[in-house]
Parts: sequence; C-alpha cells; structure tokens
Amino acid sequence: MKSVAGWSCSSRLRPAWVMVACLCWPLLHGCAAPRGVGDMGVVIERATGSVEVVETTGKTVLSRVEGLGDLSHASVVYSRDGRFAFVFGRDGGLSKVDLLTGQLAGRVMQAGNSIGGAISQDGRLVAVANYQPGGVRVFDTETLVQVADIPAVDAQGRTSKVVGLEDSTGQRFVFSLFDSDEIWIADLNDPAKPKITQFTGIGSKPYDALISPDGRHYIAGLFGDDGFALLDLWHPEAGVKRILKDYGHGEKRTAVYKMPHLEGWGMTEDLVFLPAMGRHEVLIVDRAEWREVGRVPVVGQPVFVMARPDGRQIWVNFAHPENGKVQVIDVPTRQVIRTLTPGPAVMHMEFTPRGEHVWLSVRDSDRVEVVDTHSFERIATLSATKPSGIFFTFRAHKIGL
Amino acid sequence: MKSVAGWSCSSRLRPAWVMVACLCWPLLHGCAAPRGVGDMGVVIERATGSVEVVETTGKTVLSRVEGLGDLSHASVVYSRDGRFAFVFGRDGGLSKVDLLTGQLAGRVMQAGNSIGGAISQDGRLVAVANYQPGGVRVFDTETLVQVADIPAVDAQGRTSKVVGLEDSTGQRFVFSLFDSDEIWIADLNDPAKPKITQFTGIGSKPYDALISPDGRHYIAGLFGDDGFALLDLWHPEAGVKRILKDYGHGEKRTAVYKMPHLEGWGMTEDLVFLPAMGRHEVLIVDRAEWREVGRVPVVGQPVFVMARPDGRQIWVNFAHPENGKVQVIDVPTRQVIRTLTPGPAVMHMEFTPRGEHVWLSVRDSDRVEVVDTHSFERIATLSATKPSGIFFTFRAHKIGL
Repeated sequence: MKSVAGWSCSSRLRPAWVMVACLCWPLLHGCAAPRGVGDMGVVIERATGSVEVVETTGKTVLSRVEGLGDLSHASVVYSRDGRFAFVFGRDGGLSKVDLLTGQLAGRVMQAGNSIGGAISQDGRLVAVANYQPGGVRVFDTETLVQVADIPAVDAQGRTSKVVGLEDSTGQRFVFSLFDSDEIWIADLNDPAKPKITQFTGIGSKPYDALISPDGRHYIAGLFGDDGFALLDLWHPEAGVKRILKDYGHGEKRTAVYKMPHLEGWGMTEDLVFLPAMGRHEVLIVDRAEWREVGRVPVVGQPVFVMARPDGRQIWVNFAHPENGKVQVIDVPTRQVIRTLTPGPAVMHMEFTPRGEHVWLSVRDSDRVEVVDTHSFERIATLSATKPSGIFFTFRAHKIGL
Repeated sequence: MKSVAGWSCSSRLRPAWVMVACLCWPLLHGCAAPRGVGDMGVVIERATGSVEVVETTGKTVLSRVEGLGDLSHASVVYSRDGRFAFVFGRDGGLSKVDLLTGQLAGRVMQAGNSIGGAISQDGRLVAVANYQPGGVRVFDTETLVQVADIPAVDAQGRTSKVVGLEDSTGQRFVFSLFDSDEIWIADLNDPAKPKITQFTGIGSKPYDALISPDGRHYIAGLFGDDGFALLDLWHPEAGVKRILKDYGHGEKRTAVYKMPHLEGWGMTEDLVFLPAMGRHEVLIVDRAEWREVGRVPVVGQPVFVMARPDGRQIWVNFAHPENGKVQVIDVPTRQVIRTLTPGPAVMHMEFTPRGEHVWLSVRDSDRVEVVDTHSFERIATLSATKPSGIFFTFRAHKIGL
C-alpha cells in the first residue's frame, strides 16, 4: 500500500474509485451531465405544488421539484442564463427552481396572495404582483432578498390588488391597480428609490395586461368598462388612451366562466388577437392604429389566445364547458382551420421557440400533449399530475415574458 | 484494510478520494460546474481560427476553442439547446463547438469555400452555403454526417455561388444564387428528397439576404441591379417582387469598400432599416407596403444595420475608412443621436437578447467592448485576438438566426 501526500490507496483500485466518485458527483452537485438549458422548461403541477422539469428535444420529463406551495394559479419567469425558473404561486410564495439539478434553489413567502411577476431587463430583479396585501415587491434574483416594496396606494389612501405586472426596457416594470383603476410605471434603476409614474382613471377594474414584444405598448383589459387601456411607453407623457371602445362586453353582459389571460401574446407583426370577455369571439386589432379590424367566431369563451412564433396561426383555448377544445385560427384568412380535442380541461399552451411544436396541458387526464403545428398530429405524450402552465426557457430572452 | 465487492480502500481516506475524483470529473467530462447556457456566446477570433466562449452576466471569457480553420469570414448558428455553436468558416469547414466544455465537438471540411449557414426549425439539420463548389450541403446536427447535397445549377447547367442562406418555418431553407440571379426554397422535410422551388430572373447578382423575424419575408440585396428582391414565403406562388427600385445604387455608383451585410436584422415592428450599398445612408422601408419612407444620412458606408431588440434604436457600423465609428439612430425621430468611437475596425455588434447592452468587436485593438445602450457608457472590456463576429445563444430560439 502506497501513501502519497496523505492520500493512500491501492493503485490498482484507483479506476474503480474514480468510477465510484464519478457516480457520486451528480448526487453531490446535481450535475448528471453537462446539458444546455435552451430546450428545457417547467410544467406546473397545480394540485401537488410541484413542477416537472422537461426538455423539448427528446420530449421527456427530467425531474420533479416539490415543495412550491399553492400553485392553483402560477406563472414563471426565467433567469437570464435560463437555468433558474422563478415560480410565482397563489399563496405568495416565490420559488427559485434549478432546472439543471432539479432542486429548489430558494423560496420566500413574500406576501399572502399573489398573481404573477416579471424579471428586470438586466435579470437582477424579480418583481411580484400581490393581491394580499396588494402592491409589488421586488427581490434580488441571486439571493431572493427583498430590495424594494411598492405599496399600491391611491390618492385616497386605498390599497389595491395589483395585476398585469410586466417588464419593459430600462429596468421598468408596469402594472395595473385593480381596485383604483390606475396604471403605474416603476423605474427600478435604483432599487432603493423606485421612481413611480401614476396614471389614474384609466378605466374600471383592469384585470390583466400584456406588453408588446418590443416592450413598448402596455394594454390592460378592463372588467368594468368597455375597451382596453393602452399606454405607449415610448411616450408616457401622452398618457393612457382607451382603445376598442366599440368592443362592449358590457353591452350584453354574459356570465364569464374564467377570466381571459391577456399575457398570451396573441401578437403577430401587425395585428393583435385578443380574447373577448364573456363572448365566443377573438378580436383582431390593427397594431398601427389600435382599432378593431375584425372578429373571429370561436367555439367558447377564449382564455389564452396565442400566436405561433411565426405569426401564421393563432391558437385558442376556452373556459368551461368548452375547455376540452383548442381552435387554430389561420391568420391570412382569419378563419378557424382546425378544432382539436386534446382531452378534458386544456389549461395552457406553450410553443417551442421556433414554433414547430406546441405543448398542451390537459389537466383532467394528467397529461401533456405535444402537437406538431403543421400537421396537427400528436407526436408525444408526457405524464403530469394536474398540469396547468407550461413555460420554456426561451422566455429568458424575451421582453415581457 | 477492508475489501468489499472488489473495492478496497481505507475507509478513512474515502473523503479525500472523493475530492480527488470530483476534481478530476471536470477534466474527464468538461463539466466545471452546472451552468445555464442562456447568457453565453462566442466571439470569433478571425486571425487565429479560434473562438472565445463568453458569458454576458459577469461579462467574462470562459474558454478559448482552437482549430477552427480559416475564420476570416465566419458566422454561427446554435443548437436548439443552446449548448453547441455551429461555426461556418471561410475555408468550408463546419465546426461544432461545445460551449459547456470549451471543446471542439466535431468538425468537417464540407466544401472548399463557404459563406454561411442556417439551422432547421426543428434543430436537426444544419445547412451550409458554398462558394466553391457552390450549392448547399446539409448535415445532421448530432453527427455532422451529410444528409443532403443541393447543387446550385441553373437551367443552362451553370453552377453558382450560394449566398443569403436563411432558415424559415416548415423545415425550409431559402437562398440566393449569385451567378444565375435566382432564389430557391428547399423543403427538407424529407432530407433524402429535398423539394426545390426555383425563382429565376430575380435581379442581378444577389449578394446577401435577410429574413423577417417571423420567417415570412425573404429579402435579397442586388449588387448588379437597383432595389431588392422580395419573396413572401406565405405566398410563394406570387413569385419574387422587386422592391425599392427608386433606391438606385447603380445611378451613381461609388466604390464599395465592404459589402454590406443584410442579415443584420434592422427590423422594428413596422419598419426595416437597410444599408445603402456604397452610400452614406441607411434606407427606411415600411414593412406593410415595402416602400421607402426615408433615409438617414450616416458617416460612412454602412455594413451592419441592427435594431436594438426593443426596436427603439438602430446601431450602424461602417466600411473603411469610417470603421472606427458606430452610429446610433433613434427610431421615433429617425435621427443619429450618438456617434461612438470604440476603436479601430469595429467589425460586428451583438445585443444581449433583452437589449440592455451591446457587445462590439474592435478588431485592431484586440478588444471586445460592452456598452450600455441607454447611457452609451462602456461598462466592460474583454480581450480577444482580432475579434470579428459575436454570436449569443439566444439565436437558438429565433427563426432566421
């Protein structure tokens, strides 16, 4: 037996030991093998407070991460390197998931009830929109230490639920105050001193919002008024304008079975497709003039209205009782060209970044279906427990996602 | 000394052995530590046939990969997981660089002289445009085994140099034949039987091309004719149209010091900014009607004309003798708002995907400068040997990049 510099072992056994330790390495460091995160993502498992880590090349589940609290409503943004998913839970929990190790890298209970969040342009700050106690809280993405607290209090001293929180350029976040009909811009260049710009009287009860892929146009849906509120972030001095006033969901109010989601990115190069609240219609809006240029009849009340990345198709899912269907609108003809029935309760859709496939979460059959967007054929099925949102890492590179 | 199942070692020494093997692991597997590739990229070192692997969060060089041949003209596309850079060299070499291990993962000499390449929508195929012997060759991204050969031979039997090779949706590649004035679409859904659609007489000497971010509009620049050739891939049956005929670089032909690059993505939501050949101007084109709506005077002959990802600014670099300058055009006012002098021979620019920073390669001072696009301040400097192209991994997720 040889002893060299304090290390002692039978030399003929070294290869075996190296093998053992190599097998241990992944356990110690969570590095099964080097892998690119560009084709990875997470699937929210809403009932179990867990996420599946998935990859879109082989279309497989890589790991499951548990302990994320109440994910009955959840959304996700990504760190700029695509490795970490920041998961915003319904219970106010902010969880940081490491996709490479399949482990929870951090978690804070930052409020009592939250609705979503956003990440700053430089990737250093993650902001969370809260229902309870309202307002926005901002955290360091590295440490999850709170760096700013922005209570949403109007001139009358009322606090408000915050919805439609989006990131724009210049370390700005934009969000809407549901209870006081306001839109705020928070400039976080100095997180210790957020600069707030407030727009009041923007319309009754903003319920969600989207921002254009260039970070310029912020559009809030109004639950209590007709039309949408539009803010041009290149010209905030021009104020908030009301658009699509002729779209009056109030004129013939129907029961709304599920609030539509606006952050669905139904934007093509020159049009935006929006879910009509409580109607079986998708609105088509010209992006140059922000006026309605058409409507597409669909099978139910739309929830997510999402553009395939090339803008040639719009995919729509629906509220109960039509939530087992997905319809595909052809953009050039503005017609529904396909109705799919992936299974009971299709909760969300996520396109691969170049748009060849779409992943559909089918909650009540505990499956995720992968569909080819050209042939409409199902090309893979993954198991998941009550899946809802699906979020791929390409979002790391997109303003407003 | 204990012996268990053939493994034998002093148990008190195990931790040390684990440590040794853990230190060895990175050497064996090139896994320094798990890391996301989303903030990584490569810088071409043109004179030494090498690339630097860089990351944009800490703004550092992680490794250098050598042995890539003649990179005096080089471009890069990424695997769908963002881990592998496919580098197209001037000498016909196609190299596959592993960003995580900092090693060459494969290399083939696929032709005698090549000009660039593209990757298919599904990430399985990489295509290379060749000057010598002309045509396009297609390779499996996993193995670099050739799967298709598309000679560029016109009706008269002449072979042609191929330029402006771009990927679109549906496993299609689009490219131009410099010597026979054609544009071809190659549908590679079945790589064994590429389906070719040819458009002839598209204008004299197409020299480069770009495709819109949605993969719909292919625009080739013409060296021997006025205007540009436009193909709408949603309506290929409509054929190739000539646009911007009033832009006559031929009317007052000046010496062209360096061919402009069109693949520079000077596209905002509704405009495209194009380098005017041989003129000190940037052309502004309306994307709805494809007509010129203005020109911006600049300090020299533009080479790359690139939009900041939010479309608010256009950055331009120049041919000799103004190649030490970079100008920034403000999109709303269409004015040059800043002239930067980063150093001698600014070869390329690459924005971080959300646009907060731009990386500039300054060849003759062997530096890469990182500039804040809001303040225009230099925030970091990296050393590189005769740097030219800079390519970040977010390109993995973009049609046409």
